[in-house]
Amino acid sequence: MDKNMLHTMIREFLREDIGRGDLTSESIFPGKQIGSARLVARESFVVAGAEKVAAEVFKVQNAEITTIDPLADGTRTSPDMVLLRVKGPVVDLLKAERVALNLLQRLSGIATLTASFVAKVAGYPVRITDTRKTTPGLRVLEKYAVRVGGGTNHRFNLADGVLIKDNHIAACGTIKEAVARVREQIPHTIRIEVEADTLQQVQECLECHVDIIMLDNMNPEMMAKAVENINGCAMIEASGGVSLATVEAIAGSGVDIISIGALTHSAPSCDIGMDWSFQKLDVDTRS
Amino acid sequence: MDKNMLHTMIREFLREDIGRGDLTSESIFPGKQIGSARLVARESFVVAGAEKVAAEVFKVQNAEITTIDPLADGTRTSPDMVLLRVKGPVVDLLKAERVALNLLQRLSGIATLTASFVAKVAGYPVRITDTRKTTPGLRVLEKYAVRVGGGTNHRFNLADGVLIKDNHIAACGTIKEAVARVREQIPHTIRIEVEADTLQQVQECLECHVDIIMLDNMNPEMMAKAVENINGCAMIEASGGVSLATVEAIAGSGVDIISIGALTHSAPSCDIGMDWSFQKLDVDTRS
Amino acid sequence: MDKNMLHTMIREFLREDIGRGDLTSESIFPGKQIGSARLVARESFVVAGAEKVAAEVFKVQNAEITTIDPLADGTRTSPDMVLLRVKGPVVDLLKAERVALNLLQRLSGIATLTASFVAKVAGYPVRITDTRKTTPGLRVLEKYAVRVGGGTNHRFNLADGVLIKDNHIAACGTIKEAVARVREQIPHTIRIEVEADTLQQVQECLECHVDIIMLDNMNPEMMAKAVENINGCAMIEASGGVSLATVEAIAGSGVDIISIGALTHSAPSCDIGMDWSFQKLDVDTRS
Amino acid sequence: MDKNMLHTMIREFLREDIGRGDLTSESIFPGKQIGSARLVARESFVVAGAEKVAAEVFKVQNAEITTIDPLADGTRTSPDMVLLRVKGPVVDLLKAERVALNLLQRLSGIATLTASFVAKVAGYPVRITDTRKTTPGLRVLEKYAVRVGGGTNHRFNLADGVLIKDNHIAACGTIKEAVARVREQIPHTIRIEVEADTLQQVQECLECHVDIIMLDNMNPEMMAKAVENINGCAMIEASGGVSLATVEAIAGSGVDIISIGALTHSAPSCDIGMDWSFQKLDVDTRS
Amino acid sequence: MDKNMLHTMIREFLREDIGRGDLTSESIFPGKQIGSARLVARESFVVAGAEKVAAEVFKVQNAEITTIDPLADGTRTSPDMVLLRVKGPVVDLLKAERVALNLLQRLSGIATLTASFVAKVAGYPVRITDTRKTTPGLRVLEKYAVRVGGGTNHRFNLADGVLIKDNHIAACGTIKEAVARVREQIPHTIRIEVEADTLQQVQECLECHVDIIMLDNMNPEMMAKAVENINGCAMIEASGGVSLATVEAIAGSGVDIISIGALTHSAPSCDIGMDWSFQKLDVDTRS
Amino acid sequence: MDKNMLHTMIREFLREDIGRGDLTSESIFPGKQIGSARLVARESFVVAGAEKVAAEVFKVQNAEITTIDPLADGTRTSPDMVLLRVKGPVVDLLKAERVALNLLQRLSGIATLTASFVAKVAGYPVRITDTRKTTPGLRVLEKYAVRVGGGTNHRFNLADGVLIKDNHIAACGTIKEAVARVREQIPHTIRIEVEADTLQQVQECLECHVDIIMLDNMNPEMMAKAVENINGCAMIEASGGVSLATVEAIAGSGVDIISIGALTHSAPSCDIGMDWSFQKLDVDTRS
Repeated sequence: MDKNMLHTMIREFLREDIGRGDLTSESIFPGKQIGSARLVARESFVVAGAEKVAAEVFKVQNAEITTIDPLADGTRTSPDMVLLRVKGPVVDLLKAERVALNLLQRLSGIATLTASFVAKVAGYPVRITDTRKTTPGLRVLEKYAVRVGGGTNHRFNLADGVLIKDNHIAACGTIKEAVARVREQIPHTIRIEVEADTLQQVQECLECHVDIIMLDNMNPEMMAKAVENINGCAMIEASGGVSLATVEAIAGSGVDIISIGALTHSAPSCDIGMDWSFQKLDVDTRS
Repeated sequence: MDKNMLHTMIREFLREDIGRGDLTSESIFPGKQIGSARLVARESFVVAGAEKVAAEVFKVQNAEITTIDPLADGTRTSPDMVLLRVKGPVVDLLKAERVALNLLQRLSGIATLTASFVAKVAGYPVRITDTRKTTPGLRVLEKYAVRVGGGTNHRFNLADGVLIKDNHIAACGTIKEAVARVREQIPHTIRIEVEADTLQQVQECLECHVDIIMLDNMNPEMMAKAVENINGCAMIEASGGVSLATVEAIAGSGVDIISIGALTHSAPSCDIGMDWSFQKLDVDTRS
Repeated sequence: MDKNMLHTMIREFLREDIGRGDLTSESIFPGKQIGSARLVARESFVVAGAEKVAAEVFKVQNAEITTIDPLADGTRTSPDMVLLRVKGPVVDLLKAERVALNLLQRLSGIATLTASFVAKVAGYPVRITDTRKTTPGLRVLEKYAVRVGGGTNHRFNLADGVLIKDNHIAACGTIKEAVARVREQIPHTIRIEVEADTLQQVQECLECHVDIIMLDNMNPEMMAKAVENINGCAMIEASGGVSLATVEAIAGSGVDIISIGALTHSAPSCDIGMDWSFQKLDVDTRS
Repeated sequence: MDKNMLHTMIREFLREDIGRGDLTSESIFPGKQIGSARLVARESFVVAGAEKVAAEVFKVQNAEITTIDPLADGTRTSPDMVLLRVKGPVVDLLKAERVALNLLQRLSGIATLTASFVAKVAGYPVRITDTRKTTPGLRVLEKYAVRVGGGTNHRFNLADGVLIKDNHIAACGTIKEAVARVREQIPHTIRIEVEADTLQQVQECLECHVDIIMLDNMNPEMMAKAVENINGCAMIEASGGVSLATVEAIAGSGVDIISIGALTHSAPSCDIGMDWSFQKLDVDTRS
Repeated sequence: MDKNMLHTMIREFLREDIGRGDLTSESIFPGKQIGSARLVARESFVVAGAEKVAAEVFKVQNAEITTIDPLADGTRTSPDMVLLRVKGPVVDLLKAERVALNLLQRLSGIATLTASFVAKVAGYPVRITDTRKTTPGLRVLEKYAVRVGGGTNHRFNLADGVLIKDNHIAACGTIKEAVARVREQIPHTIRIEVEADTLQQVQECLECHVDIIMLDNMNPEMMAKAVENINGCAMIEASGGVSLATVEAIAGSGVDIISIGALTHSAPSCDIGMDWSFQKLDVDTRS
Repeated sequence: MDKNMLHTMIREFLREDIGRGDLTSESIFPGKQIGSARLVARESFVVAGAEKVAAEVFKVQNAEITTIDPLADGTRTSPDMVLLRVKGPVVDLLKAERVALNLLQRLSGIATLTASFVAKVAGYPVRITDTRKTTPGLRVLEKYAVRVGGGTNHRFNLADGVLIKDNHIAACGTIKEAVARVREQIPHTIRIEVEADTLQQVQECLECHVDIIMLDNMNPEMMAKAVENINGCAMIEASGGVSLATVEAIAGSGVDIISIGALTHSAPSCDIGMDWSFQKLDVDTRS
């Protein structure tokens, strides 16, 4: 995650939340009033982004803000654990607060859910992977949170991975034709993945020497049969309707990768608060 | 929601998902191949954004795409109900698909959850209102979905509303001082809202003639007492830990507004799919 | 006024004035030549923006520039009074000079005119307020200057305030219908203001419990009658054709707010110069 | 004035004035309600920008808006003269109204003031020229208005013209050194202009074969002497403290160009209104 | 190549070349004067971008311009062959001319050089591939031209491909450690490529099961030995100092891919002109 | 060359090359690992941009990077000469490497070719000048490199210079009409240049008192005749088909300026490498 890119995103989020300024805080606090605050866990979760994201939000708002003692990504919190300390102009701490919390709560939620899936398949040689079902505008951050939770990433956009789906196959008539069209156009650094709904399609994929076969919405039995047929000649990704209840059975079928849209579109936010500490204003200084 | 602003957002979301191009689809489909597709509900929910958002995603991707028969915002779907039909170059339909779905699923989820809260308080003269706990980058869209679901909006950013919170009061020493500082700075078009944690603070608010009093994390009994004390001299907003289980009791206390962060930070996505229809390519035309 | 937003504006203004570079100064001065300069009042006016705007222009051009002793906003200058001292690379001081002066002259002009209006109504419990008749691109800065001059602000844009005007009423048929349509859509944090041309419309406004009634182009007598009828049940704003000659009579009618487009669209620039001090170049170093 | 550049500016101005949307008008008008309006002169002035600027504002807001019968730039209006007719969705007409008026009033003001100066020097072979004392963000538009008023433009930014001022000369020690440094760096397509405060400096300029000599704050007598000395060997620009009262005397001294900052920093706005015409809404259609 | 992304680039290029407007053409041509022109080859080359790039430049400048009969990408021209016809407002044709030509000449140059390399290795099962040695700002376009010329692309940026180079290996101590660190972080859709300078390093790569081995600056004999050792267990890329004189020998060594920086950093421009046709202006209409 | 403008360009170039991050280096190097590197000439050339461009690329990527001992622009290198030393986080050095090299190689190539042309005409009072045939997006940088090589610049865009070409003349019927139209529109700071294909057109130019006459594609004999006819009454630019073989003959004809598109569109890249130095990672620290 490149820091310049991250800062561009954060600037936009701050602009959305702050608008032309904080009517309330700018009326009350002189610009130079210094204060400090702590971001505190209100429950147990896997933290993602205290240092790499939340601390950067405060720094983008005002480079004079100091950020201290961020909790390491991947740490499981207990209630009241401090995630990050910040110190600087109170007005800027208040302006950055909501964006920092909204991001940290969401990313920690994703890491926590990912960690739950990963725990379910401990012992299986399988990757838990995300999808493109991310929040528009937050993909890079959400996929970072998946990695923090112990998962890995699928492609980041339509340009850095190939996935030949049912539509593409239907248009071409055969998997062979679709694969041929793609293979002659793409960089050699990128693998070709093809979606297969049936064992017949798995067979076609093998004949085309595709790199990854996505078993789409198959039941574990059919998956196991597909794994047997593929026999190590391609990576195997299971996709479709995966839940905490079903993920272990899927892992047991022998697939290499299990991709789960819910990691990013259905992870509940974690509860995080901000505790403040600053001096009472000298009200006589008000002009 | 201004359309020029919306298009700017959509362009950014499409850039995130498409990158420099769709490696797969651009390899397979000639640029001029025309197709059509339908966005279809896979479950029952309150639709938000079929016309105002999803249709615009397709048009921003390619102005030649036609969008037909969008389902009216606020309609409750049944499975297989068509939300929108689109027709145009297949490559562009495929490029816009994921962004359109990701947005529509999320916004419909928010409208659906809002509608559930609104239904719980039917018969009470109370507004269900959102907060600033929205997804960074999506605030205007998510607040639109709240309105579709029957709710109303709290302030959109720190510049278009005033909320004097515990920090502001602590810094000033008294609610009176804080209100005075704010009142002399802000436009007369904007109301002053103050957070009150105790009945004593409610009393201070009344003495300052604030416009809105936010009862923060009070139980229904204390709220009812506050409502009685306020006696119509200010709008009353209840905030903090509101759930579907507790919202009716809160409404029963006589408050005017109930604000709920969960509307936007915890609404689950709705299940929506895209069904395609296009002709098989003439594979002999491939050069 | 948020500093990040301000810097974005300043960068654009500098780009407009500098283009790809300063052909003259870059040819003459080595990049490292240091100099200093003072922004000096050439006449008497109310200064606005020496620290908050002009100093920031120099810092945005080059963060190595030091800004010293800015005159406090609201100070009334006498000729030769120093508004700001700057020190740094001469090339960057020269590049920033014109934008800093153009802004400071304009903002001080607005503050000065506002102060004249405010002085005219000293003793009356009335606010002098601006409008949306600001220079495109400079609204936040110009409204800041109005506050420096002792005035207050009307809404900043069409999204952070409601003003139901004759067109809206005409389309709806009645004020009641227009107010109802708006009230159900807007955040509860925002007041509803309605334009009234007649005492009959004032009466309709009262029946709808609008928050602010704008008396549009009424003469002082009719205004006084309206004030009497409203009797404290709404804020009252006078608007239309206000001048230094008429403003006191309008204030005398008992209105709460007088809005004046001329504050921002007709304030003459103040005369401010820049006096320089730097060493003669060693012409032998020219290579 | 390139249209793509103009549209970028207008988009920014509309964003400033509209924010996320028009709370009032979007609540009242259905998006498809069509109306029409006329921009009407309320006084006599020289119009600048009805077609090239104001009409474009409406089109940028919504390409479906039709603009009709713009008054030709340079026309002198009489009260009630129609400057432009517009027709389209009422919501978009209302959103574009203020930006269109603010620009048209300002630009017409500049054209009108320029025309007054031009009229004063009719019969003299002299150009009335602007400066860089323009409103930040509006330079290209304001300089366009100067041309409409019969004036011509000085350089647009520090990169497309050379003006060696007292600072540059002081740093170099001599005009000769300053001119030499510049001449070896700049494109041959750009003239070198040098500011001269004394006849001695005029002489130095002539020895360096500069293209344009700016006589800075000289009285008409000294100017006439300078003109005589220069004797056609350079263009001559008079600058500093030019007013409608003094401009003819300056022209009489025989200079080629008179540059006037007031054209852009002190031109009063013209009075222009917008008259509307649309059908009453069917209030029963309100859902 | 996504069209929205392309249009953003073109807008920036036009802004660079046009600035605030075309002083010459806007002074001479009325905005509505229509003309037409043809882009014509002055020599023999492989055309790249007549339709996909040059035609889009004209359309971005003014959507009213019609583009006709673009020559198909990959066609080898003869002198005087027409590449594209355009028709529309003369001012906009002139404004777009230079950007369109500069791009088309450069891209055709790259396609032509690529085609020369491809021709040299006809008959060998090898890909001619580009590198990241592209012109900053033009990568997507230049890599497109490589494909037109019959080559294929290496990774587009540091995020869509992995290349473990000598620095990475040196820092980690072993190829094994470097590969392990990368493998656990990256999407499964992306291959791992490792640079090998010696046969010993080739052996280490094989032990780590890397996907692609880049033979860096090896001579053909060592390459042939490496190919023998790899024996189909990884793709093989030859890199470093490839020229038209040496490429066939390299292909003969049995590698799968030959990457050549010169394709994009050293391709000479092709000679293309623009022939015009428009009516003489009616000079009496000037005013 | 303004530094703020340069940084904006560099940010865009880095974004193009880095995308969302460096998959390889971010996987291998901890963010805080410090290293150093040297940019080293591999051959002899005229360096352009080591300090002003390449060093800035590293600083934009991470302000913590230190840049040391840049070689002065215009220095002729010998192989192994160090152009710049950099020190900072290894990840950021690696991310900035390719953009810095691509720019430095290209700019040094342009300076080197320019210097070759300049050397050919040593002793003649003539300028070697560039054209608008620059790489889209790099004009300001490439024209800077021309100056480093001893050349000068023609206009930077269509707005900062006038060049009346055959099309403009054809449309107007006569050079006189074209010049008149332009002269009344443009700033007095800008010269008028006219393209002349024949001695007859040269004569027309003289009658119109144009400032610069461009002799387009004339042979040296005709040029000499034109120079004689012009006789010092206008600057003379030779243009069209200039090569290292013909440039001295053209200079000998007595023209003032020789403009050469090849300076920017055909200069080969210089060979520059980057040598690294950093400590081996402690592989046990990998978590």
